[in-house]
Amino acid sequence: MDSHESGYFTETTSIEVVTRRNKKATNERIRFAMEVITRKLHEAVKEIEPTQQEWLQAILFLTKTGHLSNEWRQEFILLSDVLGVSMLVDAINHRKPSGATENTVLGPFHVERAPEMEMGDNICLDQKGEPMLVRGRVIDLAGNPIGNATLDVWQANDEGFYDVQQRGIQPDFNLRGVFRTESDGRYWFKAVKPKFYPIPDDGTVGRLLALLGRHPYRPAHLHFIVKADGFETLTTHVFDPDDPYIDSDAVFGVKRSLMVRFEHVTEDARLAAFGFSEPFWEVEYDFVMAQAGPHN
Amino acid sequence: MDSHESGYFTETTSIEVVTRRNKKATNERIRFAMEVITRKLHEAVKEIEPTQQEWLQAILFLTKTGHLSNEWRQEFILLSDVLGVSMLVDAINHRKPSGATENTVLGPFHVERAPEMEMGDNICLDQKGEPMLVRGRVIDLAGNPIGNATLDVWQANDEGFYDVQQRGIQPDFNLRGVFRTESDGRYWFKAVKPKFYPIPDDGTVGRLLALLGRHPYRPAHLHFIVKADGFETLTTHVFDPDDPYIDSDAVFGVKRSLMVRFEHVTEDARLAAFGFSEPFWEVEYDFVMAQAGPHN
Repeated sequence: MDSHESGYFTETTSIEVVTRRNKKATNERIRFAMEVITRKLHEAVKEIEPTQQEWLQAILFLTKTGHLSNEWRQEFILLSDVLGVSMLVDAINHRKPSGATENTVLGPFHVERAPEMEMGDNICLDQKGEPMLVRGRVIDLAGNPIGNATLDVWQANDEGFYDVQQRGIQPDFNLRGVFRTESDGRYWFKAVKPKFYPIPDDGTVGRLLALLGRHPYRPAHLHFIVKADGFETLTTHVFDPDDPYIDSDAVFGVKRSLMVRFEHVTEDARLAAFGFSEPFWEVEYDFVMAQAGPHN
Repeated sequence: MDSHESGYFTETTSIEVVTRRNKKATNERIRFAMEVITRKLHEAVKEIEPTQQEWLQAILFLTKTGHLSNEWRQEFILLSDVLGVSMLVDAINHRKPSGATENTVLGPFHVERAPEMEMGDNICLDQKGEPMLVRGRVIDLAGNPIGNATLDVWQANDEGFYDVQQRGIQPDFNLRGVFRTESDGRYWFKAVKPKFYPIPDDGTVGRLLALLGRHPYRPAHLHFIVKADGFETLTTHVFDPDDPYIDSDAVFGVKRSLMVRFEHVTEDARLAAFGFSEPFWEVEYDFVMAQAGPHN
């Protein structure tokens, strides 16, 4: 009887009993992952002590989150985002040496094969918004310029929408472009000042945020993927520290090192020097690339 | 800068940063639950260190689990079942005093308003399977009989299917009935020996079980809901200890105290005494009811 006794499920034995059942798993990685997931899930249930009704609410929340997900919308990724899980997975997979520009989440609005552009080009195709100049260098940890690096940039417009959210309203590939550095590592292009925007908040995740007293906004930012031979690919944002949501990004994407002052330039001489006929915002940021490790 | 610095997300600060964001939650219960869920989720991610690809696999698994759930099938409940979460929630919500019959999961096959029957009636309406006599008493912790208790019983047939899974094949309400005790607390009815059966295993949960080297079977059992005024409602199973899956119930529903020998009766005198014309299986089980607490 003893071996039977110890094999059955009680509040005390639950983790061990469930985990033991997986010992014939077909691969070690899934066995390990399910051991951790089972343990943490049971620990959470034991701490929360949900009623049957609360358990059912959780089941229905997950079910509806699945039903809301389709080719165009991924409510489970949003859930991962607002719980900080997406950022945590990003952080774990992109540990950088000290001094290198930090990674942050890719987000859902990147588009493959944006047009290659010339330095100085304007990625804003519809002349809407306040003009902005973005410039800086791509360098290594020792400060040496990196030539032939590509910067794939994309951003929301002055109303907080990406082109792919406003097909037929914004031109295709509006506020996107790929730039390639010369041997001096420098980049510069024109754009418009981006605006904060909400993540989709009309689904289960929006309802959860409301219950938690949280807003759905992401502070204004520019997205970059920077690639150079021999270096780890860098996926990151540059944030406006004066944005009202800079300290409360709904998806926790902000890092101190990724903030850079958006400077309002009004002097005629500087307007002329950069080819602007009206005041503009200037953003200067250097991307510091880490060398590719054995796993990159 | 210090207050800024500490406010941003890193691998080290992740749990605190996400949890702090919920401090304006609209009710304390949701705030507490999300604090625990966030902590356990981040702990799991930090221990597993999923690649971005593994994270995406998890997202797609959850999404597909949602898509499989509809009015007729609840794949997230199945997931909760095979991870032992349903049983754990059941155990937490039904802590019984020593000596009382233990609870186990309700399962998806209970039907409201099954027909009330007379003691001795046969709940098997199609004469398929090996005959069985089920009998015993409903008593309190001191051993006193409880009259006017109802026993709502349901079971799978000799092929492992419930009536609701085989509409048009089995008669409506086959192998279901509600019995009411007299003052002696006794119950007895006829049925057929149930068979083990698989939980639905053609979806994401079935694939997970296969990856984990697990079968989808539940050992043969009878379901009961026993109700009596002044006592906690008891939702439980009675299991056949000789079932091949008795030590590996896919949903962890088995408890030692819920096993009772299914005895094969062949002697003519006993057949005659119970009104059987062929050998039958006899199952005798007493349900020991706990008094209703303040929350029942």
